Amino acid sequence: MIIVGELINSSRKAIAAAIEAQDVKQIQKVAQDEFAAGSHYIDVNAGIFVGKEAEYLKWLVKIVQEVVDAPCCIDSPDPKCVEQALAVHKGTAMVNSISLEKDRYDALLPIVAGTDLKVVALCMSDEGMPETMEARLRIADKLINNLVKNKVPLDNIYVDALVQPVATSDSFGIEFLDAVQAITTNYPGVHTICGLSNISYGLPNRKFMNQMFAVMGIAKGLDSLIINPLDKAMMASIVTAETLAGRDNFCCNYLEAHRREAFVW
Amino acid sequence: MIIVGELINSSRKAIAAAIEAQDVKQIQKVAQDEFAAGSHYIDVNAGIFVGKEAEYLKWLVKIVQEVVDAPCCIDSPDPKCVEQALAVHKGTAMVNSISLEKDRYDALLPIVAGTDLKVVALCMSDEGMPETMEARLRIADKLINNLVKNKVPLDNIYVDALVQPVATSDSFGIEFLDAVQAITTNYPGVHTICGLSNISYGLPNRKFMNQMFAVMGIAKGLDSLIINPLDKAMMASIVTAETLAGRDNFCCNYLEAHRREAFVW
Repeated sequence: MIIVGELINSSRKAIAAAIEAQDVKQIQKVAQDEFAAGSHYIDVNAGIFVGKEAEYLKWLVKIVQEVVDAPCCIDSPDPKCVEQALAVHKGTAMVNSISLEKDRYDALLPIVAGTDLKVVALCMSDEGMPETMEARLRIADKLINNLVKNKVPLDNIYVDALVQPVATSDSFGIEFLDAVQAITTNYPGVHTICGLSNISYGLPNRKFMNQMFAVMGIAKGLDSLIINPLDKAMMASIVTAETLAGRDNFCCNYLEAHRREAFVW
Repeated sequence: MIIVGELINSSRKAIAAAIEAQDVKQIQKVAQDEFAAGSHYIDVNAGIFVGKEAEYLKWLVKIVQEVVDAPCCIDSPDPKCVEQALAVHKGTAMVNSISLEKDRYDALLPIVAGTDLKVVALCMSDEGMPETMEARLRIADKLINNLVKNKVPLDNIYVDALVQPVATSDSFGIEFLDAVQAITTNYPGVHTICGLSNISYGLPNRKFMNQMFAVMGIAKGLDSLIINPLDKAMMASIVTAETLAGRDNFCCNYLEAHRREAFVW
């Protein structure tokens, strides 16, 4: 499981305040905690700061990489912000995200084409959000084929099939899950990724529902997650689901997590 | 989700003692608790009592049905015991189980052929336990086709793809899960069922692992479970997974369970 730590996101009040105050230590502490908890990428997002997003993103990348030996996930829909953040990034970043929306696609493709960058390919187009498995597959198909043609190898593509709230439509959970399975089956070697929290929007017990959705995703082939890595119940669920999905040699990760008493079972 | 309450099983010490002491009240209390917690079938098993299994099974069926308005799941590999228990059963029982083992198959088929009985079809043959998805499918295919030929409709067949411990082989979890998906895809209308506890045999945090495995099973199409319905964390997982699998109109069951504060989230 490839884990993207999601906490350094300006939509969270404490992070937004720390960014505005340019509080290096607070941001670095979060990055260190996320890394220690097992994050492979540290997501950085400054999306709420209109006009200052690029400046803040660059600052976040710099101070995060001062203290953790991990790449960042540059989280912005704005290709110009992504480009500026990449310019100061050390190592191979993840870019979140390209989509099939024409403006975003046209501006971001030259940035990622022919590079080693990891690219999140979001199943969204100018026709709006896809609701069915088939609609997701159509978008994923175009994104994957176009990225591969532009020299982004399958192994660097992380398809985000776009989670939508199950409270909005009964089928939104299973259509997403079936899309993950279809994408991993149709394109062996491609990755699938998602954030979880939209699934439970408007419902009670959100953390628990998100956790169950992650486990169901893993059963269907999901191999990357954008999560709070400090959520010990979530991490226990992920380790366990990975073991049950046949991704844990001799149950070593499961047993090791148990021995460390790292998670909440 | 069709829930078979598993608690009245002679492999549990307290139940074995209650059976031997012919303690009607204790058994009836367990049956009532299981029914109140949402069981659709009450499993009855007296397998440890060699020579007295049939007598005890009949007694269990009678006293359980005195106090709960639910059918039993007659849990015995011995067709003679099943037959005697069925003779005293009111309503439409579930029989657990027929398999492709020749002696068991030949003796049980006439008991279920042309009836309304629900039949658990266990993926086991005289060649031993199947390890791969393909081996499970070959057995399921024969069992399903033979049962249908013998006038057991698909809707009355519950295929048990046979859970084996993931501690024995890394692939035992995913092979089972993939078999569930293949069976539900290849035979629309057939049910899939399993007990969970074998999956976690030999590992720590067994309850949690069983819970995650149930959730993964539901993602793959599993629609029936033999469980302890008094396990509130398990029940919360099942309700949530069902909602995420698109089986809960307007999230009503999920919201209702939340309102009742029935489960542990």
